[in-house]
Amino acid sequence: MELVFYAIIAGVLAVLYGFITSRQVLGASAGNAKMQEIAGAIQEGAQAYLNRQYTTIGLVGVVVAVLVAVFLDLIPAIGFVIGAVLSGVAGYIGMNISVRSNVRTAAAAEKGLQEGLTIAFRAGAITGMLVAGLALLAISVFFYVLVGPMGLEANSRAVIDGLVGLAFGASLISIFARLGGGIFTKAADVGADLVGKVEAGIPEDDPRNPATIADNVGDNVGDCAGMAADLFETYVVTVGATMVLTALLLTGIGDLLLPLMTLPLLIGGACIVTSIIGTYFVRLGKGGTNVMGAMYKGFGVTAVLAIPLIYLVIQFALGDMNAPIGGVDLSAVDAGNPAEEGTAAVTQSFTGMDLFWCSLIGIVLTGVIIWITEYYTGTNFRPVRSIAKASETGHGTNVIQGLAISLESTALPTVVIIAAIIGAYELAGLIGLAYGATAMLALAGVVVALDAYGPVTDNAGGIAEMSGLDESVREKTDLLDAVGNTTKAVTKGYAIGSAGLAALVLFSAYTADLRAYFPDVDVDFSLENPYVIVGLLLGALLPYLFGAMGMTAVGRAAGDVVVDVRDQFKNDPGIMEGTSRPNYARTVDLVTKAAIKEMIIPSLLPVLAPIVVFFVIRWIDGPQSAFAALGALLLGVIVGGLFVALSMTAGGGAWDNAKKYIEDGNHGGKGSEAHKAAVTGDTVGDPYKDTAGPAVNPMIKITNIVALLLLAALAH
Amino acid sequence: MELVFYAIIAGVLAVLYGFITSRQVLGASAGNAKMQEIAGAIQEGAQAYLNRQYTTIGLVGVVVAVLVAVFLDLIPAIGFVIGAVLSGVAGYIGMNISVRSNVRTAAAAEKGLQEGLTIAFRAGAITGMLVAGLALLAISVFFYVLVGPMGLEANSRAVIDGLVGLAFGASLISIFARLGGGIFTKAADVGADLVGKVEAGIPEDDPRNPATIADNVGDNVGDCAGMAADLFETYVVTVGATMVLTALLLTGIGDLLLPLMTLPLLIGGACIVTSIIGTYFVRLGKGGTNVMGAMYKGFGVTAVLAIPLIYLVIQFALGDMNAPIGGVDLSAVDAGNPAEEGTAAVTQSFTGMDLFWCSLIGIVLTGVIIWITEYYTGTNFRPVRSIAKASETGHGTNVIQGLAISLESTALPTVVIIAAIIGAYELAGLIGLAYGATAMLALAGVVVALDAYGPVTDNAGGIAEMSGLDESVREKTDLLDAVGNTTKAVTKGYAIGSAGLAALVLFSAYTADLRAYFPDVDVDFSLENPYVIVGLLLGALLPYLFGAMGMTAVGRAAGDVVVDVRDQFKNDPGIMEGTSRPNYARTVDLVTKAAIKEMIIPSLLPVLAPIVVFFVIRWIDGPQSAFAALGALLLGVIVGGLFVALSMTAGGGAWDNAKKYIEDGNHGGKGSEAHKAAVTGDTVGDPYKDTAGPAVNPMIKITNIVALLLLAALAH
Repeated sequence: MELVFYAIIAGVLAVLYGFITSRQVLGASAGNAKMQEIAGAIQEGAQAYLNRQYTTIGLVGVVVAVLVAVFLDLIPAIGFVIGAVLSGVAGYIGMNISVRSNVRTAAAAEKGLQEGLTIAFRAGAITGMLVAGLALLAISVFFYVLVGPMGLEANSRAVIDGLVGLAFGASLISIFARLGGGIFTKAADVGADLVGKVEAGIPEDDPRNPATIADNVGDNVGDCAGMAADLFETYVVTVGATMVLTALLLTGIGDLLLPLMTLPLLIGGACIVTSIIGTYFVRLGKGGTNVMGAMYKGFGVTAVLAIPLIYLVIQFALGDMNAPIGGVDLSAVDAGNPAEEGTAAVTQSFTGMDLFWCSLIGIVLTGVIIWITEYYTGTNFRPVRSIAKASETGHGTNVIQGLAISLESTALPTVVIIAAIIGAYELAGLIGLAYGATAMLALAGVVVALDAYGPVTDNAGGIAEMSGLDESVREKTDLLDAVGNTTKAVTKGYAIGSAGLAALVLFSAYTADLRAYFPDVDVDFSLENPYVIVGLLLGALLPYLFGAMGMTAVGRAAGDVVVDVRDQFKNDPGIMEGTSRPNYARTVDLVTKAAIKEMIIPSLLPVLAPIVVFFVIRWIDGPQSAFAALGALLLGVIVGGLFVALSMTAGGGAWDNAKKYIEDGNHGGKGSEAHKAAVTGDTVGDPYKDTAGPAVNPMIKITNIVALLLLAALAH
Repeated sequence: MELVFYAIIAGVLAVLYGFITSRQVLGASAGNAKMQEIAGAIQEGAQAYLNRQYTTIGLVGVVVAVLVAVFLDLIPAIGFVIGAVLSGVAGYIGMNISVRSNVRTAAAAEKGLQEGLTIAFRAGAITGMLVAGLALLAISVFFYVLVGPMGLEANSRAVIDGLVGLAFGASLISIFARLGGGIFTKAADVGADLVGKVEAGIPEDDPRNPATIADNVGDNVGDCAGMAADLFETYVVTVGATMVLTALLLTGIGDLLLPLMTLPLLIGGACIVTSIIGTYFVRLGKGGTNVMGAMYKGFGVTAVLAIPLIYLVIQFALGDMNAPIGGVDLSAVDAGNPAEEGTAAVTQSFTGMDLFWCSLIGIVLTGVIIWITEYYTGTNFRPVRSIAKASETGHGTNVIQGLAISLESTALPTVVIIAAIIGAYELAGLIGLAYGATAMLALAGVVVALDAYGPVTDNAGGIAEMSGLDESVREKTDLLDAVGNTTKAVTKGYAIGSAGLAALVLFSAYTADLRAYFPDVDVDFSLENPYVIVGLLLGALLPYLFGAMGMTAVGRAAGDVVVDVRDQFKNDPGIMEGTSRPNYARTVDLVTKAAIKEMIIPSLLPVLAPIVVFFVIRWIDGPQSAFAALGALLLGVIVGGLFVALSMTAGGGAWDNAKKYIEDGNHGGKGSEAHKAAVTGDTVGDPYKDTAGPAVNPMIKITNIVALLLLAALAH
């Protein structure tokens, strides 16, 4: 049991890092009065949005917590509350740091590029370490309390359901935060562009545009708070699912159970340590301007150091690296007749060394997905350049080529994910898959740091522009911001890729749980069962419907922004003349209301779909078919969602950078016809990459978790 | 055996109808000299394209036929040749009628709307009846020769492999024709629009545009010949798969086997008769202008008459409608251990009445899918209007809303397809599913008629415009053409929906074949097998990759057109002044070469993917996993492809009609900013709906057929 303390210590270390670093960042100069005024408006808007968002989510959360307590038990309900609250806290603090660092980054950029990079990256690192640290603390402290002081068996129902409840809490907040934040940021962005750039002919971030503050608020509530909640969820769900699967599958391993259930936490702790070290390697060479290179140096150090440390941690927890662990060999079991096995251990045997190799697969997969995403969204490679070139012949060909790239971009990630699945499975079966996913997520601290850096620099540029700082400052913030699109795309690719693995782990937990709860129901998961096909089709449909809702919501809310801004311009001609200040707060308030309203129904889709499908199919053809269809639905969501999410996030990033590439002076540069076409592509990509696409990630997992809870509730 | 004669008679009847009606159409006035000159250029271009396309396909076909003969046997190789040649013939004749009816429709429209409708619809009906008739003849004559004169057992390997070979031939031609034609038509269309409307500022179908003839040629080779080959394939594959599945699953039914294997052919024959009757109901009321209503009247009569006739045909073939047919009840068999069963009959028992209800499900499903497609692509409903409205705020919001609608449009079809699957399966198991699909396809004659009508009227409008006919003629052809977008979308929705069912039948044939060929290999198709997940992911990837290739090909070929037209304008200023004739043939030739070149690699993707996946997985983990992964890949292609195809075809149709809706005077009408945005959306939708989307349909089936052939080759 004392093993878990090491994980708790690592979690505390991450929070401490966040605390100390935030004091450093907040101690830096906040610039002149004008800058502070603008930053204050952004801060206020972001605060107001998050308050309202969390109030709404809180109401839903209370209802769900009560339902969990009634239909299940108190422990999962408590787990739910912990997961939900800490997910909210991670997003909240991250956003608070972000809206304070933006102006400080702008001020630091007045001194130099390295100074700006330091502030902005540290701000990102604070969010990153808080996400990883709080997530690790949530699981390890909760697990410790249940198994230590409360004396529950590590693989008892109470512990398993508690961990699932924790994951559910994190997931539910995350889908609301991702979607609400995503709708906010893109409605403001698209709306501001449409009415500002297109109609009024004023540049981006022009202080005369009433939607410009809302746009900057959006960066913080969407790309920072929403993303933080998402990655917190991914972390909790992946590590939690690995522990749950260990408890469900490995029943005959005696004293090894507790160390094995704690091991994912220790791997998480080890990577927090290497992530903290890695952050200190993010610096430019002397006089260098390769911001992306500096970022990758930090990631590289983290990942490389993680390898030996994970080895040591596994050895520390298990002792002998080569002693076989695990129950019945899968090949000896008649897989077609689950009833025979009941709750018996069903897994191939593996060693500590196998788990190390699986973790290594996770780390390598992370690196490869980052590289692929960079290829599809970086301005140096064929995909982005082909979109830029297609812009020369107009809006239509820009969008066609962008859609082609977004479809194509799914291929390589899918192939490497498949390779990882096969590799991990051959080494250590389902547990191997779970360790691959865990090692991937263990790097979340540094990956989130890279991503949370983006909105800070984006805002810094906006503040520099609005407060009329020297051109050279904007140039530096642009240089810092240029990598933001890629790092944002990278995190999304990483989150989706890991979600694919995590969801497979959750699906395994579903089948294991099904056997444990209903040993007498012989569920046929074969593709020859038509209800499996029905489940697969329904599951694959969910991301499409969810994506449609997200895209429509952005369109509708952006339309509201356009109407509001037109109205402000009309009623106060002084705004355009620069003599009177637009009512920024009104626009922020309007987008806030729209985003909150629009996020509810799509968020409930993945929560309700598994329940509805189960009961409808049970009504039609009984529980066997219903369990089969529900299981297939879970896989269908993964199969469908992976492609929708990958294509949307990579496609959106590519469109955005194709515009940047043209703005850098290619194909006619800013103001050319090609540039106009590229702006259209960028607008199309916005809800793709920042609203619908990334929200598919929590959607996939929430469907799986609800199915697990449904099983527990049915058995209750 | 004499039962099959009735099917052959129906097939001959359809061909006779085509022959007689084409004499009527060709007997109508072909207009003045100018019109004939333009029509001649289109005719020449289409002929040149098809000649080159079929030469290329022929080369591939000969290689594949030899491979089939070597790795399998002579009978499937002969089947392959018959399927390939007749598929080509159907497309070829259809195109030839189409390029001769276009000018006659324009001439008839000078007299009146009804006169134009009559010629254009008859032209479509000729193609429709030829497709259904030749497809029915191909299977029934081939089946008759094998089982009658050659004396083979109806469920012998030679007959089964022969039918699979026939389907393969039709599919291989179809994917090339769909993709090649699709790339041609959209490269010409997009290229002509970009350089004509956008750059030169001349209207659509302006004779000064060198790409305008290529655009009209494209309508014929893509929307007519390509579509005809596609539906021919769908027909042959669906009916053939139903026969193969009957032979594989129902082994212990003695004398009933032959009537049951012939029954799908009889249903096809019955619907040909009702389709011919239906065509005579396509007429406007006195002075009416509701062209769509006239079309639906024809379809409605066909479908309603088909119901009692199918009942009679089933009774005629089986005798007692209520006698149970079928082998072992599925629920009594341990589904997890296929080795136990060997080649034994595995199906639930059913009656003739059950088959009738399943057929009814297929007919109702056809009607519902048509209605849903009309909802998503018609100008009277929310989806198209929401895109039109979103055009007011620019190109970006038009595309965002169009993408949202394209994602959303997958939901209802999926739900009704799922309902049909459950209903048919509950009635008569897999055989029930097969009969649902067969009844759906039996209506192909009238559905193709509706679709093939489109390019005729589209061309008629172009010819009226280019030959300077009176405004009133163009108005009438516009009225006729207005429904073209919807009927085209309807056929595609229908083809994809039926492909979903047909592919499930093919998947069942795969599993049944697997057990028959390799009774000792215990393949685990459970979702818990990681190789099943690998297969599902790889399968779902294929339509994405295929779509990406198709979209890129159109972009690239359209770029070539732009370059060519710019070059012609530059070197001969007389073209723009109207004093010299552009070199239409040069552009047609260029698009021809580009389309042929671009169609090869994507078409080979679904042919090679199953083979590569099988051998790679076999190398990694042995034949059990390889068979499982290959089976899962087949389902993955369906699950992924259904959504990609539905979203692309409906989305593209909606974009197109949103433009039409604006051109009708809404949101500012022609020339407004909203119209420009809608033109962008239409351009984006073009390769979606006419290249990538529809080609997914043959792609899904070819993957399944190649897997069946691979099994046979491995067993050989």
